[in-house]
Amino acid sequence: MDLAALLDRIADDVAPEIGRGSVADYIPALARVEPRRFGMAVAEVDGRLHGVGDWRTPFSIQSMSKVFTLALALSHGDGVWTRVGREPSGNPFNSLVQLENEDGIPRNPFINAGALVVTDELAHHGDAAETLLRFLREESGNADIGIDAEVAASEAGHADRNRALAYFMASYRNMRRPVPDVLDQYVRQCSIAMNCADVARSAVFLARHGVRNDGTRLLGLSAAKRVNAVMLTCGTYDAAGEFAYRVGLPGKSGVGGGIVAIVPGRCAVCVWSPGLDARGNSVAGVAALDRFTTLTGWSIF
Amino acid sequence: MDLAALLDRIADDVAPEIGRGSVADYIPALARVEPRRFGMAVAEVDGRLHGVGDWRTPFSIQSMSKVFTLALALSHGDGVWTRVGREPSGNPFNSLVQLENEDGIPRNPFINAGALVVTDELAHHGDAAETLLRFLREESGNADIGIDAEVAASEAGHADRNRALAYFMASYRNMRRPVPDVLDQYVRQCSIAMNCADVARSAVFLARHGVRNDGTRLLGLSAAKRVNAVMLTCGTYDAAGEFAYRVGLPGKSGVGGGIVAIVPGRCAVCVWSPGLDARGNSVAGVAALDRFTTLTGWSIF
Amino acid sequence: MDLAALLDRIADDVAPEIGRGSVADYIPALARVEPRRFGMAVAEVDGRLHGVGDWRTPFSIQSMSKVFTLALALSHGDGVWTRVGREPSGNPFNSLVQLENEDGIPRNPFINAGALVVTDELAHHGDAAETLLRFLREESGNADIGIDAEVAASEAGHADRNRALAYFMASYRNMRRPVPDVLDQYVRQCSIAMNCADVARSAVFLARHGVRNDGTRLLGLSAAKRVNAVMLTCGTYDAAGEFAYRVGLPGKSGVGGGIVAIVPGRCAVCVWSPGLDARGNSVAGVAALDRFTTLTGWSIF
Amino acid sequence: MDLAALLDRIADDVAPEIGRGSVADYIPALARVEPRRFGMAVAEVDGRLHGVGDWRTPFSIQSMSKVFTLALALSHGDGVWTRVGREPSGNPFNSLVQLENEDGIPRNPFINAGALVVTDELAHHGDAAETLLRFLREESGNADIGIDAEVAASEAGHADRNRALAYFMASYRNMRRPVPDVLDQYVRQCSIAMNCADVARSAVFLARHGVRNDGTRLLGLSAAKRVNAVMLTCGTYDAAGEFAYRVGLPGKSGVGGGIVAIVPGRCAVCVWSPGLDARGNSVAGVAALDRFTTLTGWSIF
Repeated sequence: MDLAALLDRIADDVAPEIGRGSVADYIPALARVEPRRFGMAVAEVDGRLHGVGDWRTPFSIQSMSKVFTLALALSHGDGVWTRVGREPSGNPFNSLVQLENEDGIPRNPFINAGALVVTDELAHHGDAAETLLRFLREESGNADIGIDAEVAASEAGHADRNRALAYFMASYRNMRRPVPDVLDQYVRQCSIAMNCADVARSAVFLARHGVRNDGTRLLGLSAAKRVNAVMLTCGTYDAAGEFAYRVGLPGKSGVGGGIVAIVPGRCAVCVWSPGLDARGNSVAGVAALDRFTTLTGWSIF
Repeated sequence: MDLAALLDRIADDVAPEIGRGSVADYIPALARVEPRRFGMAVAEVDGRLHGVGDWRTPFSIQSMSKVFTLALALSHGDGVWTRVGREPSGNPFNSLVQLENEDGIPRNPFINAGALVVTDELAHHGDAAETLLRFLREESGNADIGIDAEVAASEAGHADRNRALAYFMASYRNMRRPVPDVLDQYVRQCSIAMNCADVARSAVFLARHGVRNDGTRLLGLSAAKRVNAVMLTCGTYDAAGEFAYRVGLPGKSGVGGGIVAIVPGRCAVCVWSPGLDARGNSVAGVAALDRFTTLTGWSIF
Repeated sequence: MDLAALLDRIADDVAPEIGRGSVADYIPALARVEPRRFGMAVAEVDGRLHGVGDWRTPFSIQSMSKVFTLALALSHGDGVWTRVGREPSGNPFNSLVQLENEDGIPRNPFINAGALVVTDELAHHGDAAETLLRFLREESGNADIGIDAEVAASEAGHADRNRALAYFMASYRNMRRPVPDVLDQYVRQCSIAMNCADVARSAVFLARHGVRNDGTRLLGLSAAKRVNAVMLTCGTYDAAGEFAYRVGLPGKSGVGGGIVAIVPGRCAVCVWSPGLDARGNSVAGVAALDRFTTLTGWSIF
Repeated sequence: MDLAALLDRIADDVAPEIGRGSVADYIPALARVEPRRFGMAVAEVDGRLHGVGDWRTPFSIQSMSKVFTLALALSHGDGVWTRVGREPSGNPFNSLVQLENEDGIPRNPFINAGALVVTDELAHHGDAAETLLRFLREESGNADIGIDAEVAASEAGHADRNRALAYFMASYRNMRRPVPDVLDQYVRQCSIAMNCADVARSAVFLARHGVRNDGTRLLGLSAAKRVNAVMLTCGTYDAAGEFAYRVGLPGKSGVGGGIVAIVPGRCAVCVWSPGLDARGNSVAGVAALDRFTTLTGWSIF
């Protein structure tokens, strides 16, 4: 399959969707992003890389970081699963309701509460944001990937909800390090800026069932498959069922407008377009992935 | 792969799990089932059939019927999706809470409320239980498949919760036919008795992306894949995330102790063992499917 | 205090509120009511009766009936309290959420689910609607009080939500008689038409701590006080706190626009005006009771 | 009525209840309290004071402080009501669920979230704990009333849940001052130690409809009555309906085992016994108030 030509076609097909939806506006640094951007990249398991549109333009990865921190935490063992569940939440990503009904154990690692637990876990092995940065730079081969300081400062100033989530879990003894430390590392992770090519290259180990670009193994076969399973059931906020239905691939979205998706055994895909739907997923991004699986026939179902 | 030998090995491996858990006891006809039964069958897309243990013993399919009625309703078009969602519920299968918060639209077709809507929709085209029976007999080639009259009578006598769900949806105008009619058809669907071989043969059209055993098409490629997607995210009550994580296949369970799972492009699997875990899924059944995907490497992730 | 003059003054004061809000429109028979009606009556414990405006015009008592059926059920003993609680619900009057979380035991006897239980309890001693009618006729001295057949028929045709509530409780074994029977009696109770004078005279036994107009005792001192307590905490749907705050009297409202309130030791008050606020309480009715307690100083606080 | 003799009789009557229930144990300083303590005091509107048992022994007032801070906040005007509701919560005192559903506006000023808002409001006029201390010393005439430093330190070390509540409200812009400041003032209020006599004398202005012991007015007639109304509907956590039913007086409890209740126009009562029921109210305290209203006939109903 000529993926380069395919990406061109997809970019044409979804053009009417680009600019639709609303750019995240809870912090000024995100609100300023030009809504009509669109980029898409595919990193194949054999190392080939393809892209279209703004695929070399960095954007804020936000919650896409949660896939990588989960994988990094699992590379140290299964311990994190005693502190966070694996079920879809059925509620918005920053809801406290279930957390209360379920004694401070977040439903899954991709809602904010769960990602805070994963960060707390990863922090046993050094600053979680630094660990993540190092991994992303190594996988992508791009040493320039960094934290957007303006986004990080802005996030830190709008973190009361996450702070509430963290203290709430602390009240159930499900937070080991001091909340301000965990929150700081969490905010810096979310504020990393990357382009589609680098995200796709950093995520392709999940299509390779755990094997990194340098041939070493980050995760065992089962663990890697299971990260994909959690992405499928929990990766797109409370629209995971809809995403599985339309796209049929494990995927994780971020409010920066990015989505990363995995075709097991084949490739990782990253798409970026800042306009979000009501549930926080990129409108043009979902449409592009929908076209991608329709045209390739590569859904997992 | 020698699936016959594989099934033998799985039966050995899961022997310690057989008899664990609790047999469904809300009606006497189910409570009487011998807990130490175990059967498993695989129907391949090319027609080959394999089995082990009690794979020729009929059991009550219960909620496994919901996969078939959904597929049959979708064979008439997409209309049902205006009346039922596609998101995991995050709540027990017969909960009313979300139904109230979401104006009488059930979260998905595999919780009881959603299946009542699907039955109501299918009933436009004739008695839904009869339609289902006809389909199951044709696909399995077993004309003896029937409704267990004792189970049906018993279910009808313990249907107050489902009756409440149906009237509740009626109060939101999401029930078209009279509640007693819909409930009667729903109860009879759940009371069908089948063996593992027949279930696997009846479900293999989902592995064949919509094509029935006689080569005709029940569903288009996309629609069939999408039924699989809904099974993955919503098929095992509030344990869908755990099932995706452990087994990695679309699956649908019933409180009779059966689970049907799909390996797209390859086969349908049906396993049966009556002991249920706290969430209503067969203990030995989940274990057997876990072994199956581990040994074959056939998870979708 | 010259209550007749006082009522005239209140009618003047609240004139701007009359016609505000929305008339209940879920059934045609209620939707047709002229919104600009206003009546108010006071029945003193010594038998004196005062009124203003449309105080002799019958209206649909709806949920005000719940106070009387509770008192009648309690006249047979405390048994009903094993099947219904005494706490404010904090949720709309016909919500199923709490019922599910609390195993089919309604929070209090003034939400619909609780009133269905009270009806079921009262039905042990004969048809509950007939028992209620007999009591209301005796207390008011008005043998013409009856059930509005059009309202009753209309309610019966819009009872799916209440039917769902009743079957839901039945699934928890908290419904003793057949649901259709209980529902029929419940609907007829709510469909009784009375005027303000008759309601006030029928309720004054609660101001007399249980003693009826003929000097016999319906309830003991404690039981009567406790009905007042439940009215205060639960009598005005999810606005009970606001009503206690503004009016400071035990009161029970109905979607027909009536409110009955008790001044312990002094009198019962009934006010009627069909325009309802967002929580289902009469706008002009609450305003009139607010004026009444302000002018008389007769709040219980 | 000979209140001194009455209190002796009540102490005898409730003796079997003393020591029942569980002493609050979330902080060591409270867990150490001797469970078999019992004291009760009545402060009449004319200044007479009566007591029995341990009525001169200081204890931790905890949530009873919320009544006084509400009254002090209202003495500056009605502004606080734009930030907190007046409805019973129907949920435990430190729940976050409703807060989320209702956009960060707490249901009432007596759940923790609401009291944090009241503290934030009162803090406009100086340190809220100091303001409260000054008021309590003036009303009781006891200059020795102070903050228990050990309790305060202990509370501050177990405040993650309250910290979560405060940051959660901050995320809805319903917290004006920095969370750490508000929390510090809140913790010190709750850690005040007082005896029954001093609490009763400090609360009797609510029985005098707003007039303090020195004849000056803290609150207008309406405002004072309304504080009583909020106490009745919301003062005893999620047992307010039960307390109204059994006791029939406005009351506010604390997990230190104290309860303060108001008989409008007559007196304030404070009872203390550390054993708590499942909902956090003193077992012997509720029993004593129940006896008190039964023997005096002074319920408000």
